[in-house]
Amino acid sequence: MIIVIKPQTPTMEIDRIVNELSQYPVSIERLQGKYKVVIGLVGETNSINLDNIQQISSCIEQVIRVKQPFKRASLEYRFGEPSEIAVSTPNGIVTFGQNHPLVVVAGPCSVENEEMIVETAQVVKAAGGKFLRGGAYKPRTSPYAFQGHGESALHLLAKAREATGLGIITEVMDTSDLEVVAEVADVVQIGARNMQNFSLLKKAGATGKPILLKRGMSATIEEWLMAAEYILASGNPNVILCERGIRNFDRQYTRNTLDLSVVPVLRTLTHLPIMIDPSHATGYSQYVPTMAKAAIAVGTDALMIEVHPNPSSALCDGPQSLTPADFVELMQEIHPLAQYFGRGKV
Amino acid sequence: MIIVIKPQTPTMEIDRIVNELSQYPVSIERLQGKYKVVIGLVGETNSINLDNIQQISSCIEQVIRVKQPFKRASLEYRFGEPSEIAVSTPNGIVTFGQNHPLVVVAGPCSVENEEMIVETAQVVKAAGGKFLRGGAYKPRTSPYAFQGHGESALHLLAKAREATGLGIITEVMDTSDLEVVAEVADVVQIGARNMQNFSLLKKAGATGKPILLKRGMSATIEEWLMAAEYILASGNPNVILCERGIRNFDRQYTRNTLDLSVVPVLRTLTHLPIMIDPSHATGYSQYVPTMAKAAIAVGTDALMIEVHPNPSSALCDGPQSLTPADFVELMQEIHPLAQYFGRGKV
Amino acid sequence: MIIVIKPQTPTMEIDRIVNELSQYPVSIERLQGKYKVVIGLVGETNSINLDNIQQISSCIEQVIRVKQPFKRASLEYRFGEPSEIAVSTPNGIVTFGQNHPLVVVAGPCSVENEEMIVETAQVVKAAGGKFLRGGAYKPRTSPYAFQGHGESALHLLAKAREATGLGIITEVMDTSDLEVVAEVADVVQIGARNMQNFSLLKKAGATGKPILLKRGMSATIEEWLMAAEYILASGNPNVILCERGIRNFDRQYTRNTLDLSVVPVLRTLTHLPIMIDPSHATGYSQYVPTMAKAAIAVGTDALMIEVHPNPSSALCDGPQSLTPADFVELMQEIHPLAQYFGRGKV
Amino acid sequence: MIIVIKPQTPTMEIDRIVNELSQYPVSIERLQGKYKVVIGLVGETNSINLDNIQQISSCIEQVIRVKQPFKRASLEYRFGEPSEIAVSTPNGIVTFGQNHPLVVVAGPCSVENEEMIVETAQVVKAAGGKFLRGGAYKPRTSPYAFQGHGESALHLLAKAREATGLGIITEVMDTSDLEVVAEVADVVQIGARNMQNFSLLKKAGATGKPILLKRGMSATIEEWLMAAEYILASGNPNVILCERGIRNFDRQYTRNTLDLSVVPVLRTLTHLPIMIDPSHATGYSQYVPTMAKAAIAVGTDALMIEVHPNPSSALCDGPQSLTPADFVELMQEIHPLAQYFGRGKV
Repeated sequence: MIIVIKPQTPTMEIDRIVNELSQYPVSIERLQGKYKVVIGLVGETNSINLDNIQQISSCIEQVIRVKQPFKRASLEYRFGEPSEIAVSTPNGIVTFGQNHPLVVVAGPCSVENEEMIVETAQVVKAAGGKFLRGGAYKPRTSPYAFQGHGESALHLLAKAREATGLGIITEVMDTSDLEVVAEVADVVQIGARNMQNFSLLKKAGATGKPILLKRGMSATIEEWLMAAEYILASGNPNVILCERGIRNFDRQYTRNTLDLSVVPVLRTLTHLPIMIDPSHATGYSQYVPTMAKAAIAVGTDALMIEVHPNPSSALCDGPQSLTPADFVELMQEIHPLAQYFGRGKV
Repeated sequence: MIIVIKPQTPTMEIDRIVNELSQYPVSIERLQGKYKVVIGLVGETNSINLDNIQQISSCIEQVIRVKQPFKRASLEYRFGEPSEIAVSTPNGIVTFGQNHPLVVVAGPCSVENEEMIVETAQVVKAAGGKFLRGGAYKPRTSPYAFQGHGESALHLLAKAREATGLGIITEVMDTSDLEVVAEVADVVQIGARNMQNFSLLKKAGATGKPILLKRGMSATIEEWLMAAEYILASGNPNVILCERGIRNFDRQYTRNTLDLSVVPVLRTLTHLPIMIDPSHATGYSQYVPTMAKAAIAVGTDALMIEVHPNPSSALCDGPQSLTPADFVELMQEIHPLAQYFGRGKV
Repeated sequence: MIIVIKPQTPTMEIDRIVNELSQYPVSIERLQGKYKVVIGLVGETNSINLDNIQQISSCIEQVIRVKQPFKRASLEYRFGEPSEIAVSTPNGIVTFGQNHPLVVVAGPCSVENEEMIVETAQVVKAAGGKFLRGGAYKPRTSPYAFQGHGESALHLLAKAREATGLGIITEVMDTSDLEVVAEVADVVQIGARNMQNFSLLKKAGATGKPILLKRGMSATIEEWLMAAEYILASGNPNVILCERGIRNFDRQYTRNTLDLSVVPVLRTLTHLPIMIDPSHATGYSQYVPTMAKAAIAVGTDALMIEVHPNPSSALCDGPQSLTPADFVELMQEIHPLAQYFGRGKV
Repeated sequence: MIIVIKPQTPTMEIDRIVNELSQYPVSIERLQGKYKVVIGLVGETNSINLDNIQQISSCIEQVIRVKQPFKRASLEYRFGEPSEIAVSTPNGIVTFGQNHPLVVVAGPCSVENEEMIVETAQVVKAAGGKFLRGGAYKPRTSPYAFQGHGESALHLLAKAREATGLGIITEVMDTSDLEVVAEVADVVQIGARNMQNFSLLKKAGATGKPILLKRGMSATIEEWLMAAEYILASGNPNVILCERGIRNFDRQYTRNTLDLSVVPVLRTLTHLPIMIDPSHATGYSQYVPTMAKAAIAVGTDALMIEVHPNPSSALCDGPQSLTPADFVELMQEIHPLAQYFGRGKV
């Protein structure tokens, strides 16, 4: 349930309203939008009478029940106003959101050694990327495949951050690694295979770090938003949704199917920012640039692109990684296209 | 197997080569590309020795086996050169192909009456569309739903064609209707549900009319190209592939999942032109403009958009139809975007 | 809408009721169940007042609206009583239905020559099968693959029928072949790829022959029943539903996924008999016996099993065909198992 | 790679062979089968010459490379001999395996209170079940839904174990709960949503407890076996695979699609025992008995059935839970059917 406060309502009156609401057995959140303050109530709101709430104050403009099962993630919960997730990086604050420039995140599948991660970070930086991605802990189908260098890779990410000023996005797979990951990561990633690892969602949310939540391989949009709700319900409002391709009956030519229509659909359902990962979605570097451009055309807020200094020798996901040269070329196409769609100055 | 002929080879020598080839138990096709002549052999080519072919003439540049199961549809079969499908309409020839402007096809799900179809055609024409779509025979899930006005609707399409000069695209569902449909249609559509109706593919191909082949609901890319191969094998080289969304596990917010990555994938596999239908793919008019723009970004050759004078009273598929006003607005966005991607003058 | 007539109502009174109903703009069907007569009304029944119908006669026990979109196929339409489809074969009448013994249909994918089809028919007959299956017209993914021997194969099926007394089930793919197919076939099959070939459904239905309707590769249960409804609405009550595996994300070890839970689900939705085809579902003969037994455990009314005298040289679908010896062995397991589940005397 | 030792080879010679093998950079496992000893080598075996191994001893019968990506899970790894997983319960040892009676696991979705869990356990015991299932930690789509009573529920499971002598199967969701769960559980369950939570797989494996590994919602068979391989590679040979329905395009009538053909397929790929969970697969209690019987027909080694004293008031998954009366009735059908298929004395 949300309570929309009239513009120019004095803070003291809002405080009074919140205080009155504390008699109800619900959790209360106060959201400062651009134009309006909205108070969100989550919990057993079915038994609350709308009129009783309305009568608390003449400064209440409207009281609305959120019908979606995802409450805090719903567009109604912010009264239609998109979230802005501002992440502080050495190079300055980068904001994810519909009214902000497209953010490009790039880097290798996994952190292999200092040279390669710093070198890649420099390429990403020079081409206009804002964040470096790189896996320290890698979810691999086979226990015999390279599992990531773990904690030592986190230190290398910190070095690349220092060297370039880029923000760091890296994945956490185990609640017991959360602390060390959150120390280095500016944005903590939860991967597709862990989208419904609810323990991880709760505890990652509780770190307070912005969370990049990848869509599960066959997760419905509602399940995905409910997973985001776990993080939001832990008190962390900073969730970025990342589409990375869904599983399908045809896997001969692409690894997954990039579901770009989630972007216009999510815009009608949620205020959360959206990222598109064409690298994992297609699985082949040759298709990445085309799908990256399509993602801009549907209005994504951010892109995640895999880049590797030498894809053919990559320890994982080489076939889907762009070379530095291809990445630079793509960025040269992305800049004017983002501009064209009003999302320029990447 | 294809035989690439050297540039400037005299026609007489090509005739001689073709004549020599006629000893083999295969079907022979001569394809005049922009720069080169290519001779295609389809049939029991496994037993043919490449060297023997090479020795037929010093004007043979190269002999290549097509490894794909789709032979005539393969990119190799035209030695990498995209097909151009030129369709004659009262307003002039419209060409579908990678080196031609984006073609927009629009119109209602079904032809309801003369006034609505002519009126819609005029909107489509004025906004820059080149073809009118409209169903005379409608494949409906329920036998009790409106099945289309049949032959009388074909006459109305002819009237709309006369009134506007637009080409006509309409669906055929039964081999016994092929003759009457082919009389009116400039492009004959085979629907998703009939993509593997092989009798229809063969006989529709044999009419010689250009065929718009929609992808089946859960057809793999290979199955789709094999369906196209049925038409090509019937001697008809004019096939346009139309992606209209595939079936998925999540159907709560969209009717199907628009698989836009088929465009870059198909470019590596086939020379055939591609159309995208965002209306059937999403099922909701509000998502159509966004996905139409994404389709242009991935490089589609054509778009199919549903437009209805009054969607809420449409006899079928109202929710996915744009109003004339919305269509005009979309076209105003499409023109410069196609221009941006080098596919302008729609 | 259905009207349940009280037991012992005189025929004359039923005639009068039907006559009264003829004032409504609906189609009327009179169904003689085991214990009761039920009158079905299909069409614009929303505007009909239930009370008005009730008042037509005191012999009307109940008036019920069918809420499902499939009317004639719904269980309510026969007031819960399962259909019985009696097919006349030279060896006598074979009945498909829940209160009848399991019916086994077997034979090769396609009719290759007289010897093989007659020989296979004899094996099927000897082992207790009631119908011979065999394709004259084959829906093949590739236009270059064997397409079936067509009309001449129909003659061979007639010979096999004559030689063994088995009934014949064979597929029709084109409305223009319906007449010749219906002449030989005791049951006409509509394949998975044509499940929504609505023209074929209507015209095949109109032949009056029993129809075996295979489930489409990715057809929902509702779409499948709506396809059956097309046949029922054409005035033909004899439809057998055949599950043959659905398309899925994992096709590495089986061709399709056999969805056996359709059997208990369909029992709650429809009165139509059910057949299971484990051969197409799994795609590998080694899995067929196990899945055939599971099909009996879920209560299927019939089984369709591919058998070929020499699977490794079969012109199509060899890998999924049992050898005659394996088929005989399977039938020896099937007989007592059907008995165990009260569906014996196969 | 596996090394099959000839029967009657003296232990000392086997020791010598193992010792010789220790020069190779691989991990070595010695498996005592019913008739033969097999030595498994996992790691960089590509560089090992088969002949060199063969020459180590004349007591080596055969050296075989395992081609599957899952090594320890492969059937070859145990030279075709099925695993037997013996679990000690207060009522005695219960063994999961192809040559053992069907094992029935039953209980509620979640442990709600002492009375209900003990009462249900008594019903399960009386009807012939060997294990009690019951969730302490529940993976729920919504953060606002009941999440399980956690550690206190584990104590209640221990009480039910004490009261009835049944073994306990319960799910772990977080590596940090592993210790407390492993203290109570006789078999630790990893749920479908965590099938590729690789950290959990490794650490759960390392507890040494038998692990029940549910198939992920859209996991391929190979991915599932690779997940099992994570547990096996952690040194724990006791993995039971549980099919619980896969995600599909049609979710109108069942929650998931029970993929029963995995049973015959897995028999050709792995030695691990198999459990079928018809409750989660179908999602509706009315379909559970039929599918349970089908599972026995395909040869499952175990069944997992949800039972709740009062399904309509269950805190989760009520619609798919059998009442005690229905469970007892089902068990009365299961006993003779398991007997029929040679898996009796449940």
